[in-house]
Amino acid sequence: MRTPLQPDRDQMDLHSVLYALSDPTRLEIVRQLATEKERACGTFGLGASKATLSHHFKVLREAGLIEIRMEGVYRYNSLRRHDLDARFPGLLKAILKGLENG
Amino acid sequence: MRTPLQPDRDQMDLHSVLYALSDPTRLEIVRQLATEKERACGTFGLGASKATLSHHFKVLREAGLIEIRMEGVYRYNSLRRHDLDARFPGLLKAILKGLENG
Repeated sequence: MRTPLQPDRDQMDLHSVLYALSDPTRLEIVRQLATEKERACGTFGLGASKATLSHHFKVLREAGLIEIRMEGVYRYNSLRRHDLDARFPGLLKAILKGLENG
Repeated sequence: MRTPLQPDRDQMDLHSVLYALSDPTRLEIVRQLATEKERACGTFGLGASKATLSHHFKVLREAGLIEIRMEGVYRYNSLRRHDLDARFPGLLKAILKGLENG
């Protein structure tokens, strides 16, 4: 079951997605998640405080970019790639490609 | 000759481009410019103050999304589509398509 603050696919908003991706730390989280099925919150090696990272994960989750799976005390994040590709075809691919070029 | 605050193609930054596009008014300016060669500043029908629009045009210009041509007292804006497509292939197309779907 999804949390209330995680939009369904057809409720994803383009502006919110672009805003979520406009921050370098959040874009790096998405880049790392694009290469793996899921990652625990503390494993991204981003050098930011726990509070700052929590904020970034919240922005990503509320925009619909990631989803969270709870397992005991751990939280695992994964990219909602299928939902993103269905709602905004080509967007994630273009952004990940742009990161490689940048 | 370009103004100093308008980046060359290879200096365009993905985060800045995504941030510029994350605002509904700026995204609407880009959407309108995508259908025409160029538009004068006052012709977008966006219902925002002149100061607010000036700010939005500045953010778009500094991110490299638009360029400005002066003709007498008029300023004409155009989308830097070729530069964007070369620097971030598929990005503009995916975003414009996302707007249609949204």
